[in-house]
Amino acid sequence: MGDKRTSSGFLLKQRAFLKLYMITMTEQDRLYGLKLLDALRDEFRPFGYKPNHSEVYKALHDLIEDGVLQQVKRKKEGMKLQEVVYYRFPDGGYEKAQLYKRQLKVELERCESMIKKAIRDNYGYVESATNP
Amino acid sequence: MGDKRTSSGFLLKQRAFLKLYMITMTEQDRLYGLKLLDALRDEFRPFGYKPNHSEVYKALHDLIEDGVLQQVKRKKEGMKLQEVVYYRFPDGGYEKAQLYKRQLKVELERCESMIKKAIRDNYGYVESATNP
Repeated sequence: MGDKRTSSGFLLKQRAFLKLYMITMTEQDRLYGLKLLDALRDEFRPFGYKPNHSEVYKALHDLIEDGVLQQVKRKKEGMKLQEVVYYRFPDGGYEKAQLYKRQLKVELERCESMIKKAIRDNYGYVESATNP
Repeated sequence: MGDKRTSSGFLLKQRAFLKLYMITMTEQDRLYGLKLLDALRDEFRPFGYKPNHSEVYKALHDLIEDGVLQQVKRKKEGMKLQEVVYYRFPDGGYEKAQLYKRQLKVELERCESMIKKAIRDNYGYVESATNP
């Protein structure tokens, strides 16, 4: 799978990162339409990371395709004609989501260790200079 | 630049990561031929990261193109006909390398913070349960 590039197991992919946030936002009942895009952009602005519409769309699509999330349309309160799209776990979706979250925790921790190692390997002697 | 994908500023690219290691290995006088590939594979095996030949080649090529590294051929000790390829900083290369390393330190720290944030945002409630 993934004809675009063979994975060498470098840092986690943006797609996985976005899917993780989508699952958590669904748990917290706050995944509405594409509000997510604004929410993530706000959260990650201080880090210089700006997820784009197409990445977010593909991540959502993956989760729906895999039966993790389900799109639901609901009438906006007090509005007869306006609908709002939100997401919830279909039957079996919550369990799949929890499995995915457990896998992603391992993956995030792996990435954190790799980055720490790179800081140590490439700048270690700078920091050790401040030690006795 | 970068017609393959527009950068949304997600985690650092593998290419940059490899270039950083190449610079440090040159500082330590241990960047020989493609030994680097074996060295990096050994170092990152526990992390499930296996850089491939083409990635390493492209990173080296970038550094040479940018005047950071220079390829030198040297006769192997005691061998009349065998040459070994190694890398050193050409004139001005060391300064460029140091600038790159400073930039990459900021970038690695940014990535570390983003990953820590993701762990906190998506698993925080688990860990906080152990706190008073």
